[in-house]
Amino acid sequence: MGARAAPRRAWRAGGWVEGDRALPEEVAVAFTYDGVSHAVMMATPDDLRDFGIGFSLTEGILEDASEVESLEVVSLPTGIDLRFWLRADRGDALAARRRRMAGPVGCGMCGLETLSQAQRAVPRVGQGARFTPQEVAAALEALPPAQQLHAETRAVHAAAFWHPALGLAALREDVGRHNAMDKLAGALAARALRPADGMVLMTSRISVELVQKAAMMGVAVLAGVSAPTVLALQVAETAGITVVGIARRDGFEVFTHPWRIEEA
Amino acid sequence: MGARAAPRRAWRAGGWVEGDRALPEEVAVAFTYDGVSHAVMMATPDDLRDFGIGFSLTEGILEDASEVESLEVVSLPTGIDLRFWLRADRGDALAARRRRMAGPVGCGMCGLETLSQAQRAVPRVGQGARFTPQEVAAALEALPPAQQLHAETRAVHAAAFWHPALGLAALREDVGRHNAMDKLAGALAARALRPADGMVLMTSRISVELVQKAAMMGVAVLAGVSAPTVLALQVAETAGITVVGIARRDGFEVFTHPWRIEEA
Repeated sequence: MGARAAPRRAWRAGGWVEGDRALPEEVAVAFTYDGVSHAVMMATPDDLRDFGIGFSLTEGILEDASEVESLEVVSLPTGIDLRFWLRADRGDALAARRRRMAGPVGCGMCGLETLSQAQRAVPRVGQGARFTPQEVAAALEALPPAQQLHAETRAVHAAAFWHPALGLAALREDVGRHNAMDKLAGALAARALRPADGMVLMTSRISVELVQKAAMMGVAVLAGVSAPTVLALQVAETAGITVVGIARRDGFEVFTHPWRIEEA
Repeated sequence: MGARAAPRRAWRAGGWVEGDRALPEEVAVAFTYDGVSHAVMMATPDDLRDFGIGFSLTEGILEDASEVESLEVVSLPTGIDLRFWLRADRGDALAARRRRMAGPVGCGMCGLETLSQAQRAVPRVGQGARFTPQEVAAALEALPPAQQLHAETRAVHAAAFWHPALGLAALREDVGRHNAMDKLAGALAARALRPADGMVLMTSRISVELVQKAAMMGVAVLAGVSAPTVLALQVAETAGITVVGIARRDGFEVFTHPWRIEEA
């Protein structure tokens, strides 16, 4: 599980109280493809298979989860190694991608060495589903009760997928925003849920690397409880993604491609 | 400045309202040392000299800000390049550090390629100042009025330094937690303020890379409004840092080295 109780002294109403608090776990998780180290992320050690597949998809290392022949989750004294062995029958396309994988990618941005690497071309999403304001509100209301690790620790982010027929179909949590998104990408791939059929919800601000990952997933509507950044909106505009921000119980704001959120 | 107004439609009380919202800026910032690209971070383009010096110190690229002969802040179409030219008279020590700089470091964790790189040895801080619970509360109360960019955008983090004689002596904001901390490190170095004489406040959770950066700065008391992670506490224990978490107006919790927070 992603939490552990730690002893602490609490200052409350002018006096000390001794006791424990549940805190989020954070471990170094390495990604190794066909024996070659690729990147290390600090992450909450839950849903690691989803994390591995999702990260590989949103970073363009895999085009499809079926390209993975096996994925071993190996616990080491220094952290966790996700060891991917990829199918050898993909020919030149995969070999070219493996060569591209020689450099580290980190969380999608950090770890890049030059500015030109930071400008990543993203695919444009298709039409996707449309939603009423009432559906956006319903999706947001479904979020807090499903955030189990956050209820325990008050210190982790969630990425979730809301589907008009299924409701809140998947939710993943992590100390890192982009890790939560990657875990969700893996969870949706495992269940063959199409991101463009629903909306993806984030409990955080919408930064540029989240929009880039959303574009790689084929997300059409991305809603965050906090604000988007200016650069995130520029990428979302190009990628055709509807960005909803400041999404709260009493309302929300639509920044790009507003035609997907309309009254019935 | 770090914010820009963006047009949006807001759904409020069952109807649409057109208007603008101030959103945080986010740009790719590259670090180049003696002409060699080192890392790229997404950051709020304020206080970039503080960011450059602070990052270089907390990542161990510089031991002292005086090692910088010049720092140019160059705006490019793709982002901002911080170009450092280092003093050549430092001999072997600096040359060795330059060789180490060959690999990217990212935000301190992301971008590392192997698990062993993620286990970074941190220095142990000295005695440092002690504080009463009332001083911790006073420092926390001073924080919100000083968060100017957050007041405008509601979507950026702050790192601040509270000194018993000076009050809130420095505060820096950024969309990224670790960037805010790096900017603060640069601001303290520029004014020759010793981090161990006061306490460093973060508006976020305390993750392991923030504790590592704090140790590099010589911080003795690190207080966050959210929770620390389990791994962050392990590193803080070793580094001798007092970690305060869940720091709110109605109280706070002390997780490591509690002897620095005592009633007078």
